[in-house]
Amino acid sequence: MTFTFELLATDPSGARAGRLHTDHGMVETPIFMPVGTQATVKAMTPGELQSIHAQIILNNTYHLFLRPGHALIKQLGGVHRFMNWDRPILTDSGGYQIFSLGKMCQIREEGALFQSHIDGSKHFLSPEVAIQVQEHLGSDIMMQLDECPAADASREQVKRAVELSLRWGERCKQAQSGTGQALFGIMQGGIDEELRRKSASGLVSMGFDGYAIGGLSVGESRENMLQVLRYAPGLLPVDKPRYLMGVGKPVDLVDAVGLGVDMFDCVLPTRNARNGQLFTSRGPFNIKRSENRDHPGPIDEECPCETCRCYSRAYLRHLFINKEILGVRLLTFHNLSFYMGLMRQMREAIFAGNFAEFRDTFYKKLLRNE
Amino acid sequence: MTFTFELLATDPSGARAGRLHTDHGMVETPIFMPVGTQATVKAMTPGELQSIHAQIILNNTYHLFLRPGHALIKQLGGVHRFMNWDRPILTDSGGYQIFSLGKMCQIREEGALFQSHIDGSKHFLSPEVAIQVQEHLGSDIMMQLDECPAADASREQVKRAVELSLRWGERCKQAQSGTGQALFGIMQGGIDEELRRKSASGLVSMGFDGYAIGGLSVGESRENMLQVLRYAPGLLPVDKPRYLMGVGKPVDLVDAVGLGVDMFDCVLPTRNARNGQLFTSRGPFNIKRSENRDHPGPIDEECPCETCRCYSRAYLRHLFINKEILGVRLLTFHNLSFYMGLMRQMREAIFAGNFAEFRDTFYKKLLRNE
Repeated sequence: MTFTFELLATDPSGARAGRLHTDHGMVETPIFMPVGTQATVKAMTPGELQSIHAQIILNNTYHLFLRPGHALIKQLGGVHRFMNWDRPILTDSGGYQIFSLGKMCQIREEGALFQSHIDGSKHFLSPEVAIQVQEHLGSDIMMQLDECPAADASREQVKRAVELSLRWGERCKQAQSGTGQALFGIMQGGIDEELRRKSASGLVSMGFDGYAIGGLSVGESRENMLQVLRYAPGLLPVDKPRYLMGVGKPVDLVDAVGLGVDMFDCVLPTRNARNGQLFTSRGPFNIKRSENRDHPGPIDEECPCETCRCYSRAYLRHLFINKEILGVRLLTFHNLSFYMGLMRQMREAIFAGNFAEFRDTFYKKLLRNE
Repeated sequence: MTFTFELLATDPSGARAGRLHTDHGMVETPIFMPVGTQATVKAMTPGELQSIHAQIILNNTYHLFLRPGHALIKQLGGVHRFMNWDRPILTDSGGYQIFSLGKMCQIREEGALFQSHIDGSKHFLSPEVAIQVQEHLGSDIMMQLDECPAADASREQVKRAVELSLRWGERCKQAQSGTGQALFGIMQGGIDEELRRKSASGLVSMGFDGYAIGGLSVGESRENMLQVLRYAPGLLPVDKPRYLMGVGKPVDLVDAVGLGVDMFDCVLPTRNARNGQLFTSRGPFNIKRSENRDHPGPIDEECPCETCRCYSRAYLRHLFINKEILGVRLLTFHNLSFYMGLMRQMREAIFAGNFAEFRDTFYKKLLRNE
């Protein structure tokens, strides 16, 4: 086991800065992990990801399990080599995608039966299979299999999911074969504090290398999410990384870092880029808008990324409207650059001990441009 | 006028090596020009094009005329600045696309009336408009407006096209406003030697900065094309560049260079990449084929490009089958690298005076792998 977490600074606000150490190098936290669903961060090369200082990416176990298959990726030397990315990789367990993408999913004590969203073929995912698949992929950080109820689930359903997820967490721990990959537990409990406490204490008593806050960003209101985040990180050990799964918008990242979260992943910067939606220091922005037709300036005057240094809004709009691949490339590059830059600014603010000030400035700039 | 052509070497075979000098730098001939239809070479950044030693690209006047419009590109500083490419650019006249893509095209002495393939809007393209549009775009090399008949046109139709193209060539010359951009004439005549001679002598007597061989690669047989290429380059001045429009496959480039052609453009390397078709030193190759599913090796063992250095066929097939943008990017990068490498090898062979030997080796390798 070579995975460790170093907590280096805690801002008066509660925001934390630290380092993850893995077999594939070091990661500065708080960190945003670009999503590389099918062993590729859509439209980006590994070299481009490095150029914008991406330090760790996420791969989706569900997709790689179905295509091209974990056995093939293992045979080809693991997912790092497969996709030519030699920095850290976190894999999810596949559970979330089974529930959201798979068809006919049946959850039992033993595991989950589901049909592929691609060809309808039947598959079974248990805690043991989830670990085996992630060990074959060879990620640096594995996630336990959990059950993630939707925001409209009843308290009874959420309670059952908490309990099942704890049992599955224990089975994931037992299923590890000593590859040295880290394993994170996942807290569930919806927006119910008692269930969150139960989930956290169960996980912590088992002892994981890190802890995720799951079951958020599943349809609940932003206020409900923040309400959970006001206490949930505090239920987890100070000396382990805390990962808020599937979140989120820039404002969510800023708020959650302020509440003590260390790690994030989200498809928004990549997916929105493919829809022409850009993130900027003045808030969101749509490249398709007609006022960009002849605009000679960049997406964001303050952004130092190559897209903003080299290309006008007029050109980017032209590419996007004509469905040119380069358009999606350059917009994705900008959005991920923006996210990476935002995380870097937050780390600097935490080390400087002025995170609250950073957050105020960030919000003021957004509000001024609304 | 700052455009000049330097002929540096002529191989015993007839193959020529030289240099084009333009306001945006020097181009080594024989050269292949990647096609950047909508002011982007599909899926590639300018930086990537430079990294594979692309020296000049082609933009399609027809597409830029319709979207985003030449006036807008002029207002934004010209097409070099628009697309962030500071090396030479050749623009075609738009004529070929009007005939092949436009609807309801009516050719008159004055010019061509056509409807946009995008929205059906009506437009008029004359020699004078073609020059004005290309001057607004600010390309380094402009092409005259010509009429390019299909391979099944009658001799009478081809003859009328030769005569009309000569009159339009003269009008293009007259329409230039002294921007310093080069202007190439275009030889027509189908596969009829007498008409080709008539076309060439008419153009040469007007005097252009370079000469294109048009009206090939329009549906005629490869043997018919080669038959024309055995005499057509010799009808043109030795001290001017010769550009074979819209050609072609690697074998076509090798044959045509051997017959004294200096410049080429073709959508094959970029378009075929988007269909999973790759060019290699052993001939064409389809990444989708099932035997690539678990192949750990590169597309082409002999290829030094980044795609071949860093990615397995198994990964490239995975990306392609999953319609990942990175797949198209990496395949396009390989195909263009292959074309650029082939042209470089030909230039070196010409300077070494052993082009015929190069051509023999090239063909033997292809045949061995058929």
